[in-house]
Amino acid sequence: MLNHFLSQVRDQVSKNIEFVIGDSNHIEKAMNYSTLSESKMIRAALIFASADTHNFLKNESKVTLATSVELIHTYSLIHDDLPAMDNDDFRRGKKSNHIVFGEADAILAGDALQALAYEIIADDNNLSDESKIRAIKLLSNACGKNGMVLGQHLDIKSESKDISQMEIENIHSLKTGKLIECAVMLGQLENISSNEKIFKSFGRNIGLAFQIIDDYLEATSSSKKLGKDINSDEKNKKSTYINIVGIDKSLERSEELAKSAIDEINDEKISNSEMLIELARYITKREK
Amino acid sequence: MLNHFLSQVRDQVSKNIEFVIGDSNHIEKAMNYSTLSESKMIRAALIFASADTHNFLKNESKVTLATSVELIHTYSLIHDDLPAMDNDDFRRGKKSNHIVFGEADAILAGDALQALAYEIIADDNNLSDESKIRAIKLLSNACGKNGMVLGQHLDIKSESKDISQMEIENIHSLKTGKLIECAVMLGQLENISSNEKIFKSFGRNIGLAFQIIDDYLEATSSSKKLGKDINSDEKNKKSTYINIVGIDKSLERSEELAKSAIDEINDEKISNSEMLIELARYITKREK
Repeated sequence: MLNHFLSQVRDQVSKNIEFVIGDSNHIEKAMNYSTLSESKMIRAALIFASADTHNFLKNESKVTLATSVELIHTYSLIHDDLPAMDNDDFRRGKKSNHIVFGEADAILAGDALQALAYEIIADDNNLSDESKIRAIKLLSNACGKNGMVLGQHLDIKSESKDISQMEIENIHSLKTGKLIECAVMLGQLENISSNEKIFKSFGRNIGLAFQIIDDYLEATSSSKKLGKDINSDEKNKKSTYINIVGIDKSLERSEELAKSAIDEINDEKISNSEMLIELARYITKREK
Repeated sequence: MLNHFLSQVRDQVSKNIEFVIGDSNHIEKAMNYSTLSESKMIRAALIFASADTHNFLKNESKVTLATSVELIHTYSLIHDDLPAMDNDDFRRGKKSNHIVFGEADAILAGDALQALAYEIIADDNNLSDESKIRAIKLLSNACGKNGMVLGQHLDIKSESKDISQMEIENIHSLKTGKLIECAVMLGQLENISSNEKIFKSFGRNIGLAFQIIDDYLEATSSSKKLGKDINSDEKNKKSTYINIVGIDKSLERSEELAKSAIDEINDEKISNSEMLIELARYITKREK
């Protein structure tokens, strides 16, 4: 059931990504290269699953919001892979953007992906202006100087340093968690409910769990399976959840986070939340 | 009169830039470093001057929109100066962002500036949601894959190549003109008038004139006066307006563009357009 859901989301969102980027110049080609490569599109799926708990969002708008978050996520991957950042040559099963298009165009493609993420929300005629503004607030806040960008900065800064479990949780929550939390909240757009806090907490918990499992997979999987450099953290002497608290405690922590995310949703008897719960489970069980 | 106007704009916008960026982490410091350095803030001034032709925009919103455009402009300068792009060590009279903060944080500071530009528009309580969306559409369109980013890509691609006057005009219009045109149009926000085309054409003409003069100043001024590397174009074997059509014809062309911009505004008897016209004149006469 989950696989069917994920592939349905991926099909719709991929098609829209291709549509909104176009293919008429070199920058658009560079943007397409990274967005259209193999991706699980977990963030997109979270928007759809979160929106399924109510009936206010039209499917077209779910597609727009999911596309927007995937554009932001992809821009961050392109910039993170740059030589000045994590210097990774492989991503999503193929060469990184800057290896194929050169550093200058990779930086520019990332910049243009960010602009496009806001543009397509502003252009969505199915959303009210009020909802568009709420969405743009959520997104810009999640990915900016107090969110994803700060997380990436702290992540690089933590290289070769001894940091605590609390510090790595803060880095992971900013770098990865914020955008995942944002995806869950975007799915709640146009749903005026008293459950905002529950969804926020759900997003925060699974966001952190997601990055812990990312660290775990990087430490234990093969490069071929993950489709990216597996020695990247080691090469960059990154602080990871695994080398701070060990494999067993890392897996325990991610289980605990997913469980508390799921419990809150169940306790509040959120309707049609099956897929959201499936996704929370998947995030801790995934193998790539 | 113009100097007083420019310094009033700069004072208000600088104060707001400082306020919206903050100073609580390293990324915010890197963002501040480049935004608060010596800048003429022509784009901000154009928003104010354009808005002065009607009474619909509150001063607070002019400040927000001007801040937003200056944030976008600064992000583009930080990224353009990177070693992978134009590799310039000086900007606005001091060391470039990446020289002081390192490449990784310079890339991140630019990314965060872009996000913040959208966030502050979405957060402006003096603008209607409809106006916010119009502003975000204008801005994201001007700076994305069919605007500023494409212009920077074409500019880099043109290095060491023979290109025509038409081609360099296209590059300049995208790279520099689009954001300047956007600034003029942002000043027209909330002004439902039949003069949209006039303002668009005004912005397009002075945008191109601005970049022609930029090329001229780079070819003829001293580094100290300009506050940036003056040998940058030569070092990068850039195609400039000057080396394609020569100094005399370049100055003629920028005069012609400014004149036609001013004539259109005068012909339509646009009210309170004095400062807009002053700015169009200033753009072709400036010495830095």
